Amino acid sequence: MITALAGGVGASKFLDGLNRAMPPEDISIIVNTGDDAEFFGVYVSPDVDIVTYTLAGIINRERGWGIAGDTFQALGMLAHYRGPQWFNLGDRDLATCLHRTELMRKGQSLSEITDEVRKALGVTSRILPMTDSHVPTTVLTADGPLHFQEYFVKHRFQIPITGLRFENIESARPAPGVIEAICGAEAVIICPSNPLISIGPILAVPGVRDLLKSTRATVAAISPVVGGASLKGPTDRMLAELGMEVSATQVAKLYQDLLDVYIIDEKDRESAEEIERLGIKVVVTQTVMSGPAEKLALARATIRAVKSER
Amino acid sequence: MITALAGGVGASKFLDGLNRAMPPEDISIIVNTGDDAEFFGVYVSPDVDIVTYTLAGIINRERGWGIAGDTFQALGMLAHYRGPQWFNLGDRDLATCLHRTELMRKGQSLSEITDEVRKALGVTSRILPMTDSHVPTTVLTADGPLHFQEYFVKHRFQIPITGLRFENIESARPAPGVIEAICGAEAVIICPSNPLISIGPILAVPGVRDLLKSTRATVAAISPVVGGASLKGPTDRMLAELGMEVSATQVAKLYQDLLDVYIIDEKDRESAEEIERLGIKVVVTQTVMSGPAEKLALARATIRAVKSER
Repeated sequence: MITALAGGVGASKFLDGLNRAMPPEDISIIVNTGDDAEFFGVYVSPDVDIVTYTLAGIINRERGWGIAGDTFQALGMLAHYRGPQWFNLGDRDLATCLHRTELMRKGQSLSEITDEVRKALGVTSRILPMTDSHVPTTVLTADGPLHFQEYFVKHRFQIPITGLRFENIESARPAPGVIEAICGAEAVIICPSNPLISIGPILAVPGVRDLLKSTRATVAAISPVVGGASLKGPTDRMLAELGMEVSATQVAKLYQDLLDVYIIDEKDRESAEEIERLGIKVVVTQTVMSGPAEKLALARATIRAVKSER
Repeated sequence: MITALAGGVGASKFLDGLNRAMPPEDISIIVNTGDDAEFFGVYVSPDVDIVTYTLAGIINRERGWGIAGDTFQALGMLAHYRGPQWFNLGDRDLATCLHRTELMRKGQSLSEITDEVRKALGVTSRILPMTDSHVPTTVLTADGPLHFQEYFVKHRFQIPITGLRFENIESARPAPGVIEAICGAEAVIICPSNPLISIGPILAVPGVRDLLKSTRATVAAISPVVGGASLKGPTDRMLAELGMEVSATQVAKLYQDLLDVYIIDEKDRESAEEIERLGIKVVVTQTVMSGPAEKLALARATIRAVKSER
């Protein structure tokens, strides 16, 4: 049994490989919900949907989000009423959100709905939103706070950040299944996601970080920073803007209290010694997932690494 | 200034002609909302949308509802989660409903939203929902009551009806603009819609029927029954099932207290005398609207008929 902590696009590439490297029904994935927001009256849970669509084999691989072959008729029509929308959602993707929103209004929890949706799409891995509470991530900037989606999608992360706030996180509880997934796992793998805004919110849900510190499971992470830059998204700029070094080592430090094993790219081989001095075992491999073969190889290397630790 | 009372498909064919026969900005249309219902968490107002799309020139003419060229991706995806849906809604059509639903949740009224939507789609005629209250039509059958959409769409009106109930109608008030549209009109035209379930609910909104009785405007109707059958939809079966004659004369009797002028088809010429004995002036013309020319001709004949009455 392996439990993964995941954001959206970066995590999904890794999970796609993991899903082929081991029985999918032995995988549980705890997913960030700090990006969740309501658009056009529907509740959008971007990371949950990216992970679900990826494991269902229907993700749009070019975009990294949404459903392959989806159309954008509804959003096009909505623009007649509201002008162009900066948040985009395909027609089939919208159906997932409509379905979720109606069930939420009827009193079902995000975790219950997520479970139904993944089963309906034939996904056998468990997908667990980190919490059923709404805990939107706020990005702090010199011009004031922004909802994460405004920062990320509307402004394409081109505004310098001064801090992050996970709203309501103190009162949030792990969604049903999250604690069990961590306690029952042989290994917990932190996917190569943004440590600040994808993994950060998961670790900030009360109880989760402490559980990862105390679990007997091997806790491993794959660095989302390779050769001093993030492969995808704003991890590098956010680290820099918050006064941190942009390096695989820096990310290891953020997870220092949890990690048993850290997987870094061959490009960062020279950092291995410094990271091992933090008390973390380092595995050096090819972590850039340019295609299915690389995804599978990274998943296998990760499984080997956590197995050898036990 | 002409004010029309309208249902959906039948009315829209006539309004399409009227819109070409006179300045559209001089037309107000009071539309039935008894068919309104929530599906997939969005508020659907079928007759309001059919009228709006028709006047905007984007109606799907083959179907009679929905938007020309629309796709059904969202509903197809929803079927993965819920199984096949008996109520169909295109992707662009869904956007209209999403927009409306979100604004309603924020406190805007159906009439305000309808006005915004028709303006956004370039419609210069005024479109007025009969009321801002939710007054769903219930169809009574031997097997119990059915929501109108269940009867109409799910069962394709193949279940015999024993009665009709306009829920909450006693407490409904005419939407803002409805009273003014009737009082300020030179003529009120009852479109060739189902008298029981399209025009019936409008006349049942407290105050509307009395206003039509007392107005100095010429009140005219076009018979939706031609040669003993309805041209479209279940008007004929419903009349028969409720123990009424299926005839243009029968429809005239339903409007007897209101009507100054009644327009019937040439096929029903022999009923003219009987209807005139009810105190209603009868105009006989070609009322079957098989194409744009016939629509325009009927609109012109109707305008002539109400003008000659003044």
